[in-house]
Amino acid sequence: MDYKFEITAKSKKTKARVGKVYTPHGIINTPAFMPIGTLGTVKAMTMRDVAEIGAEIILGNTYHLYLRPGPELIKEAGGLHKFIGWNKPILTDSGGFQVFSLAHMRKISEEGVEFTSHIDGTKHFFSPEKVLEIQTALGSDIMMPLDECVAYPAKKQEAEEAVERTSRWAKRSKLKIKNEKLKMNELFGIVQGSTYKDLRKRSAEEIAALDFPGYAIGGLSVGEPQAEMFEMLDLVTDILPDKAPRHLMGVGYASDILGAIKLGADLFDCVIPTRLARHGSFLTYEGKTSIRLNIFEKDFTPIDPECDCYACKNFTKAYIRHLFWAREITAMHLLTVHNLRFFMRLMDKVRLQIAAGEF
Amino acid sequence: MDYKFEITAKSKKTKARVGKVYTPHGIINTPAFMPIGTLGTVKAMTMRDVAEIGAEIILGNTYHLYLRPGPELIKEAGGLHKFIGWNKPILTDSGGFQVFSLAHMRKISEEGVEFTSHIDGTKHFFSPEKVLEIQTALGSDIMMPLDECVAYPAKKQEAEEAVERTSRWAKRSKLKIKNEKLKMNELFGIVQGSTYKDLRKRSAEEIAALDFPGYAIGGLSVGEPQAEMFEMLDLVTDILPDKAPRHLMGVGYASDILGAIKLGADLFDCVIPTRLARHGSFLTYEGKTSIRLNIFEKDFTPIDPECDCYACKNFTKAYIRHLFWAREITAMHLLTVHNLRFFMRLMDKVRLQIAAGEF
Repeated sequence: MDYKFEITAKSKKTKARVGKVYTPHGIINTPAFMPIGTLGTVKAMTMRDVAEIGAEIILGNTYHLYLRPGPELIKEAGGLHKFIGWNKPILTDSGGFQVFSLAHMRKISEEGVEFTSHIDGTKHFFSPEKVLEIQTALGSDIMMPLDECVAYPAKKQEAEEAVERTSRWAKRSKLKIKNEKLKMNELFGIVQGSTYKDLRKRSAEEIAALDFPGYAIGGLSVGEPQAEMFEMLDLVTDILPDKAPRHLMGVGYASDILGAIKLGADLFDCVIPTRLARHGSFLTYEGKTSIRLNIFEKDFTPIDPECDCYACKNFTKAYIRHLFWAREITAMHLLTVHNLRFFMRLMDKVRLQIAAGEF
Repeated sequence: MDYKFEITAKSKKTKARVGKVYTPHGIINTPAFMPIGTLGTVKAMTMRDVAEIGAEIILGNTYHLYLRPGPELIKEAGGLHKFIGWNKPILTDSGGFQVFSLAHMRKISEEGVEFTSHIDGTKHFFSPEKVLEIQTALGSDIMMPLDECVAYPAKKQEAEEAVERTSRWAKRSKLKIKNEKLKMNELFGIVQGSTYKDLRKRSAEEIAALDFPGYAIGGLSVGEPQAEMFEMLDLVTDILPDKAPRHLMGVGYASDILGAIKLGADLFDCVIPTRLARHGSFLTYEGKTSIRLNIFEKDFTPIDPECDCYACKNFTKAYIRHLFWAREITAMHLLTVHNLRFFMRLMDKVRLQIAAGEF
């Protein structure tokens, strides 16, 4: 099916909305949380597990997939969906964030960014055009243009230059898409601006003027206080058109997500549920808790008696704790299943509440 | 249901037989391969994965479960089946092999064996009575008595003393079972004797005389040539009663298992399929192959096109190879699924062949 975004319900008290993103690989009900499939798998999960927890879309990291196994191989395999065995939507990021946070010795120029791989030190170059070529080779349903993401805190001049470059790169990305008549892969625009109100406003205006079918808000949840993140988001969603979905990149904890939904964000992705699971923590409405704690040694109840995930339906905290201390991979798997399902159930609930006017 | 062993077909040319072991938790079709559930999980698998690959019984390690999480905790959880979420049969070993191979500074006496934990150096003591208490706390369907397993090669006197002690300990185990009227947990006898024909003969006769409902053959596949293992097994199965199932402990590769089935062995367990998987190797009729090889970089075919496992039905060698090099846990999981299913399919095939007179 063709790409489309449809709003089905709106909150009266907040900017929250319920919607559907239509993509060639299916529909995403928003607000939605996207599990991270960094390297072609959601860590410690199989694709049927990911479908079972209710995910309607996953996020792939262009930077990681570019380095391993490489876009040529994935293209030859028939695209990312086929290669990894996931026939629902995939959103890929631009690789910009990873280049600026993971790669070494990056050198930025108007043309693009040179960096050395964090794996083997080899030199690589990403331009706005190159990252789109990579993402079309992957065959992602939603692509992101190369952007410049500054660290927090950033000096104003640095943040301003990044906003300007991000806008110029967005234009080049639009142009490439137009010239090559790419149809299957929708391109979102990315708003930057660090924590400067005027820069966020300017970036949102410049990117919105380019008329993308969806928008991502980058450079938040990078160390700034939650209140500051919400302030920036509020300002940006006032400017971005209502008719397009908004992806708040890399966010976050449940409280961040709930707050951001009130401010009009629709799509979220974060390593928190999966990474915390691999480090032995489970998520509930009370926050995160370590399964390693002694209080769980003889706790023969599930992580969350309300939860319908495979881990909660079949196993006790005492068992998962035992597996974790025994360093069994299965512990990481079970905690990942629960944490992702927790986020999915949270989104289900939020969508119902917004539609019922109770959010 | 009550414990029972039934032979349903016999090979005319070899000692191979097809049978059914009835236990309180279900039926095991023999010859059977038992995946190893060392610490309360089959490594890199969930219990539903284990059921899906077709396992009808798993093996738990008494030594490991005794140290972590301990029999008291498992008993409090309602037994091993309930604790780990596996409602089919479980066979537990006696811990003897691990004490003699893993634990440090063991001191053997007529009473039992003192050892220090390989995890934290704490001192422990296993007697024939103690390991039965542990196994009844676990609630295993089939238990093993404490035996003395010598290393290979062993001096004759050492091997002889181990045979004698194993027989005396078997008698004490029988006595304990009888006195406590244990009904749910069947106790097998264990034959030792290293690679000495007369000792194997003597051990088999002494243990068979105690009239166990099933027998285990220990101390093989510990470094001796395959021919020597087969020679010992052949001799032992001539002595053990036909009416009881025979478990060749810790064996092995497919070729070992096929040879042993011809010599009348019914039950097998081994870490090979699961351990090889975690180290990146897959099993086929051609033997083991490393998924890491460059030849698989662009191999977009399954591990085995004939195989019906989740990994082979959904993923290519190129994908699993990529996951393995990227150090994704999912690679270990998918290889484990395939390797265990390979063993299960091998057993399915063997049972059909024996029944059809084609083995």
